Amino acid sequence: MTTEIFKNIGRIPFKGPDSDDPLAFRDYEPDRMVLGKRMEDHLRVAVCWWHTFCWPGVDMFGAGTFDRSWQAADTLENAELKLQAAFEFFEKLGVPYFCFHDADVAPLGETIAEGDANLARIEELMRAGIDRTGVKLLWGTANLFSHRRYMAGGATNPDPEVFAFAAAQVARVLEMTHRLGGENYVLWGGREGYDTLLNTDMKREMDQLGRFLSMVVEHKHRIGFTGTILIEPKPMEPTKHQYDHDAATVHAFLRKYGLEKEIRLNLEVNHATLAGHSFEHEVAYAIANDLMGSFDINRGDPQNGWDTDQFPNDDREAALALFHILSAGGLTSGGFNFDAKVRRQSIDAEDLFMAHIGGMDTLARGLLMAERMIGDGKLAGFVTERYAGWTQGLGADILAGRSSLSDLATLARDQGLKPQPRSGRQEYLENLVNRY
Amino acid sequence: MTTEIFKNIGRIPFKGPDSDDPLAFRDYEPDRMVLGKRMEDHLRVAVCWWHTFCWPGVDMFGAGTFDRSWQAADTLENAELKLQAAFEFFEKLGVPYFCFHDADVAPLGETIAEGDANLARIEELMRAGIDRTGVKLLWGTANLFSHRRYMAGGATNPDPEVFAFAAAQVARVLEMTHRLGGENYVLWGGREGYDTLLNTDMKREMDQLGRFLSMVVEHKHRIGFTGTILIEPKPMEPTKHQYDHDAATVHAFLRKYGLEKEIRLNLEVNHATLAGHSFEHEVAYAIANDLMGSFDINRGDPQNGWDTDQFPNDDREAALALFHILSAGGLTSGGFNFDAKVRRQSIDAEDLFMAHIGGMDTLARGLLMAERMIGDGKLAGFVTERYAGWTQGLGADILAGRSSLSDLATLARDQGLKPQPRSGRQEYLENLVNRY
Amino acid sequence: MTTEIFKNIGRIPFKGPDSDDPLAFRDYEPDRMVLGKRMEDHLRVAVCWWHTFCWPGVDMFGAGTFDRSWQAADTLENAELKLQAAFEFFEKLGVPYFCFHDADVAPLGETIAEGDANLARIEELMRAGIDRTGVKLLWGTANLFSHRRYMAGGATNPDPEVFAFAAAQVARVLEMTHRLGGENYVLWGGREGYDTLLNTDMKREMDQLGRFLSMVVEHKHRIGFTGTILIEPKPMEPTKHQYDHDAATVHAFLRKYGLEKEIRLNLEVNHATLAGHSFEHEVAYAIANDLMGSFDINRGDPQNGWDTDQFPNDDREAALALFHILSAGGLTSGGFNFDAKVRRQSIDAEDLFMAHIGGMDTLARGLLMAERMIGDGKLAGFVTERYAGWTQGLGADILAGRSSLSDLATLARDQGLKPQPRSGRQEYLENLVNRY
Amino acid sequence: MTTEIFKNIGRIPFKGPDSDDPLAFRDYEPDRMVLGKRMEDHLRVAVCWWHTFCWPGVDMFGAGTFDRSWQAADTLENAELKLQAAFEFFEKLGVPYFCFHDADVAPLGETIAEGDANLARIEELMRAGIDRTGVKLLWGTANLFSHRRYMAGGATNPDPEVFAFAAAQVARVLEMTHRLGGENYVLWGGREGYDTLLNTDMKREMDQLGRFLSMVVEHKHRIGFTGTILIEPKPMEPTKHQYDHDAATVHAFLRKYGLEKEIRLNLEVNHATLAGHSFEHEVAYAIANDLMGSFDINRGDPQNGWDTDQFPNDDREAALALFHILSAGGLTSGGFNFDAKVRRQSIDAEDLFMAHIGGMDTLARGLLMAERMIGDGKLAGFVTERYAGWTQGLGADILAGRSSLSDLATLARDQGLKPQPRSGRQEYLENLVNRY
Ligand SMILES: [Co+2]
Ligand SMILES: [Co+2]
Ligand SMILES: [Co+2]
Ligand SMILES: [Co+2]
Ligand SMILES: [Co+2]
Ligand SMILES: [Co+2]
Ligand SMILES: [Co+2]
Ligand SMILES: [Co+2]
Repeated sequence: MTTEIFKNIGRIPFKGPDSDDPLAFRDYEPDRMVLGKRMEDHLRVAVCWWHTFCWPGVDMFGAGTFDRSWQAADTLENAELKLQAAFEFFEKLGVPYFCFHDADVAPLGETIAEGDANLARIEELMRAGIDRTGVKLLWGTANLFSHRRYMAGGATNPDPEVFAFAAAQVARVLEMTHRLGGENYVLWGGREGYDTLLNTDMKREMDQLGRFLSMVVEHKHRIGFTGTILIEPKPMEPTKHQYDHDAATVHAFLRKYGLEKEIRLNLEVNHATLAGHSFEHEVAYAIANDLMGSFDINRGDPQNGWDTDQFPNDDREAALALFHILSAGGLTSGGFNFDAKVRRQSIDAEDLFMAHIGGMDTLARGLLMAERMIGDGKLAGFVTERYAGWTQGLGADILAGRSSLSDLATLARDQGLKPQPRSGRQEYLENLVNRY
Repeated sequence: MTTEIFKNIGRIPFKGPDSDDPLAFRDYEPDRMVLGKRMEDHLRVAVCWWHTFCWPGVDMFGAGTFDRSWQAADTLENAELKLQAAFEFFEKLGVPYFCFHDADVAPLGETIAEGDANLARIEELMRAGIDRTGVKLLWGTANLFSHRRYMAGGATNPDPEVFAFAAAQVARVLEMTHRLGGENYVLWGGREGYDTLLNTDMKREMDQLGRFLSMVVEHKHRIGFTGTILIEPKPMEPTKHQYDHDAATVHAFLRKYGLEKEIRLNLEVNHATLAGHSFEHEVAYAIANDLMGSFDINRGDPQNGWDTDQFPNDDREAALALFHILSAGGLTSGGFNFDAKVRRQSIDAEDLFMAHIGGMDTLARGLLMAERMIGDGKLAGFVTERYAGWTQGLGADILAGRSSLSDLATLARDQGLKPQPRSGRQEYLENLVNRY
Repeated sequence: MTTEIFKNIGRIPFKGPDSDDPLAFRDYEPDRMVLGKRMEDHLRVAVCWWHTFCWPGVDMFGAGTFDRSWQAADTLENAELKLQAAFEFFEKLGVPYFCFHDADVAPLGETIAEGDANLARIEELMRAGIDRTGVKLLWGTANLFSHRRYMAGGATNPDPEVFAFAAAQVARVLEMTHRLGGENYVLWGGREGYDTLLNTDMKREMDQLGRFLSMVVEHKHRIGFTGTILIEPKPMEPTKHQYDHDAATVHAFLRKYGLEKEIRLNLEVNHATLAGHSFEHEVAYAIANDLMGSFDINRGDPQNGWDTDQFPNDDREAALALFHILSAGGLTSGGFNFDAKVRRQSIDAEDLFMAHIGGMDTLARGLLMAERMIGDGKLAGFVTERYAGWTQGLGADILAGRSSLSDLATLARDQGLKPQPRSGRQEYLENLVNRY
Repeated sequence: MTTEIFKNIGRIPFKGPDSDDPLAFRDYEPDRMVLGKRMEDHLRVAVCWWHTFCWPGVDMFGAGTFDRSWQAADTLENAELKLQAAFEFFEKLGVPYFCFHDADVAPLGETIAEGDANLARIEELMRAGIDRTGVKLLWGTANLFSHRRYMAGGATNPDPEVFAFAAAQVARVLEMTHRLGGENYVLWGGREGYDTLLNTDMKREMDQLGRFLSMVVEHKHRIGFTGTILIEPKPMEPTKHQYDHDAATVHAFLRKYGLEKEIRLNLEVNHATLAGHSFEHEVAYAIANDLMGSFDINRGDPQNGWDTDQFPNDDREAALALFHILSAGGLTSGGFNFDAKVRRQSIDAEDLFMAHIGGMDTLARGLLMAERMIGDGKLAGFVTERYAGWTQGLGADILAGRSSLSDLATLARDQGLKPQPRSGRQEYLENLVNRY
């Protein structure tokens, strides 16, 4: 089990923008200082266990295309081999973080007890891997969507026993995440939604989900976990509609159930666009409402209406998101996770590396662009100036609650107000963004 | 001004399903008793002023196609003629309600004062029309989106003077609505959003909007208006993104600004589908979260990504919505408003009548289908039975907060829980719906 | 192997619209005469092998949910059991047709030879099933998309050996279809497209595909197959873009490669909507261009951007399609195939039956509505009258090529033409459709 | 009439990438040599008359926001002022081309004769402008969609007199285009489609359109116009469905009516994405099928389902399109036209300039990236190598028609073919693109 797995690939070096080595970084330079902080500490990149090591290249119309030794069967032995591959990959790629679901790392069996032993063994190996490599756990999560018991939901299942089973899985992974020093715990409600409203009591299901999340928060405090609890919004797929549809929908939910101070968001680019939003929108919404947590930085295909989970390759999109994130103080416990699959035709180990390298270089370029945006202050300055009227006089009075509707009506009527529009300068600003 | 306008069309009669008279109702029978209430009192149908009397058949690629005497110029004289046409239309069609924007009914000029006189004259005529015909005002609203002063928003404008102007318009129409006995007041934020995030301070704009709505609520109470304040969600168009995106987004907003007990929703079918939801979803969401107010029952085109505002013609869609609405107690202050345009090629007065007749017949058929759904209890019974586990034992304990995550983990582990899935019966239920 | 499989379900009877037996037809009455032909002979309903007997309830986020004895392993023994289940299902449901892929009915192994023996055995059993039950083969097809060899295409693969393998599969199933009396042969190009243009030579791939189809047509004639060769358009999924995107795209392709007289279309409702068209549009386009062949009548979900392949439940949609189809002479070699999956939560055998019953009842209602549309002649009459100007005088001259652009310019100029628009009467027509 | 209109703006200079002057080019340098040709001669940029000089900032929910002297009324006097503004704009921006519709440049009145005189006067001034400035006409076109006579189509109207009127308009503008030295003539069929199939005879309408286009081609030859006739595909909007839906649909149409050698495509980025394609796809399709003509380079908004017609700002998208275009020999009679609107809030003259500057800089950067792509040969080399098997041996035999389906079946069976997949290297290629 100590044989090298990715045999022909060594530690990925930084070679700079002039390199054309596809197995080197051109832009990602962990120690480069950006706005007073190392690039690595800004981006906090994570590799995910599921797509990178578990997905065999299957899609709804085709069998697996990859040929990876540990994917032959769902055994503990293979799980150990997979873990070995994972840590070798983390080290060679040079990432500081990883993420996992319980079901990714060990066979879970049909009962909680069956999974316990396997997870214990894997936790031991994971601990050793973390200690040996210094790669840390960004977040753990429980898979409450693949097993047929969850076909009608985890927390929102019509059967309370499924809720109890889900609770047991979450408690177990939350505790494991805590022991392993994980910095966040994520909930993605892939089955917490409906296939048809005809068989669904939406209010009841939302109450169940509210109760579930409250219990998770309570458990977190009980065990002393100081990381962040995160919800990952997704509008649909696998179900017709999921209750954590987008940032705003989760926001409503958290406020309704009194959880808005306890839970934050893990936003995914692909889920943003499936919900009909730009990623930048979801980031800005989260920040405006104190919900920013962490990010899955994988993108979709603009022409395809499902979760393609592709590696990021658009540095301008990354830059605009990072501009908002850095302006809001930057990441704290969160990171940038690649919840991303190589394409089904990318069957070689090299593809797995190149995909991550490209994604990290994209983030790095985005960061350097955001640094320049912040550095010259033009974007922020434009916005500040545009809303200057709200910081004093009439605007300040309104915001401070010193004017009633009647007061303003009187003002507008008596002064014969004729407000004159000013250009929004959208094209100027778009041109400006293209200069960074 | 007392000449008949729709000369060749009389009062639209009910002729029943065997009639093939295109200018008669086949299904809409106001006095028919449905679940103990008159059909008219269930549906509370409203005609809108703007599309039905103001829109000239223009689109982004073409000039007006209609030939209506009162549309020649935006004068008070034409506004009076339009009002005459409106009440003649209401009476001939036999609807109990209408809706209007300030800008639909009178020339507003460039200052508040300029609009005051025109509106006063129109209010007088409207009062007379209401008294004479018995047709009532479902809701009034202010147009905060067409004039160039609002190009960057009303309440969310960077210029506080625009906010004040908007406040004056809303105060004026809210008071007018109150005097005319209107049952609701609606806010649709067509410019309360952004064209680009590059020039937008989202948090600030949402705070401005929150302040605005709070002032409206306070004014409502001050003047003694007992109707309902409603927000109409729409995801986009005219802007790239609007802050009242969908029911859930508005829900978050209302809770954040402490308005969730004061404001409810005016849901539009076309806006639901533009936001990526079924109308039934938005209805169910509103009910599950105590936000149901009123409805714009116009639909979109499933292949076109803009607000086509077509008359409803799908009785099954209407029936499923009405099934939820009636199950939740039915409409109170709300109604079904046709925020609908005839197609640009439907240039005749007959088209205007036939469009509304078809829409009302569709609602009537939907209502009769919903009556049967409720009558046999099969749909509701299925759902009740499906969630029966939550009304006692483990389920009740969980919902009541008597079990912690640990408790459930212990239960699942120690009892070796193996929950077995039960069929969701979606196809059975879809077949069932087709039987009503 | 002769034990009954669907034990508690007998022959599905017709019980009429008053029945509330979920395992009976309410509308589908095979012998009912409609426009001079039996309902069964109009609709020519087919059950598909793949979704109905092979799909285990898996999706991209979850394992199989069904529990069907023959799905345990991909062995010949299970294939035989599955075949037994299929014919029992066909008989109990009372459908006249079925469809299959080679890979659905037998294990195909890794080489052509490995598949030959298994297919031979299955063909023998299928022959016996057909003879015993009278259920016929609507169409056969080869699976050129699931095996990893096809990940980059069948006919459009960069490797000519894959083309040769695909040719061997198609030749084998085409011959088998011919021997079994199949009435059509279908090609669906699920991998004939691209994931990225960066690695794709589109012109070369289209030429390969053109060559492939020409060879199929030549082979059909060589072996004396008199059935119809059909292409099933789909815009995307599994690939980013497929070359048989929609009816018009296939039309262009067939004309470019001189195949428009040899190949027709198998149109699927769900693929129409994924391509941004109504199903009615694709039907009308196919008819207008002499390409109508057969139909996959499964629908999508209007809010979900992937192939949900749901059973039809919208009788109005079916009626409008059937109105076009019957007006064009009705189906000849084609049929209505349910390329439809029960939902993943519909895990019982009853669900499989109820889904097909609901679909057949929907088609039956659609047919009866179309009968009334055709019977009263109102829809067709309206259209004929609307275009009456083109059947004589100026219109006929133009269409017959008797006027040049100059002639018409002179006419318009000299006569001072001022054409006056006439109402398109869309709402009247929509109301009319709701009366059938 | 000789006063300067854009008073505070002079000739836009090239200042290079280090400039932060918003009214200077950073990348567009007309004389820079790229692959042996001047940048200006590669890009052949055109400004459009309609959006840039005619559109007043109106949208479906709001009145015009701009304040431009010549937009006050549709008079000949204003048309002359607009023409003056246009040529001043062309010169100051430094573009080589412009485009126009008849209705953009002069009041057309209600009869052909009414438009003749106005157009004659404008043609005279346009001739003088062209002679004075050296700016040339890329293409002319007739507006067959704005007037109410065209509400049900131009060539596809149910009324042959409308067809005749359209013919007169096209003949007139085609001749004017010819006299002015225009290099192309464009047809965009904004009303050549349907709002509902219920009132539409699709086959008849397509035959009418086929006839119309044949007449246009015949007239072109008759008058000796040697420019290119182009069709601009658009899937929908203003109608529900347009017959020139996308490149493939037009391809089918042209082949059906025998016009594929006579007419080519004017592809628009925004129309590509509305049709569910990437722009790169439409470019590649056009090239693969010998249909490349010219381009409208304005983009849409990925979250909005209508034609937003924004200025291009994505250099990577431009680069990939230009890579295909240059690889296919580059533009001949076509160009890059900005069929683009500034945003409704961009109300200043500066915005109009900055928008065009940003678009031209984007094209320039795209061109320089494409130069590097072509220069190092990596992208093309990868593709060539990937399909190498088709240039000899088995592949060449297949393409040349030397193998039948039977031959290949025998080959695959007898040789026991087991084709092995090779990685498609999508992520490597995406990374590569990010290096240019
Ligand atoms: Co995802
Ligand atoms: Co994710
Ligand atoms: Co609307
Ligand atoms: Co509305
Ligand atoms: Co499908
Ligand atoms: Co299909
Ligand atoms: Co456009
Ligand atoms: Co265009």
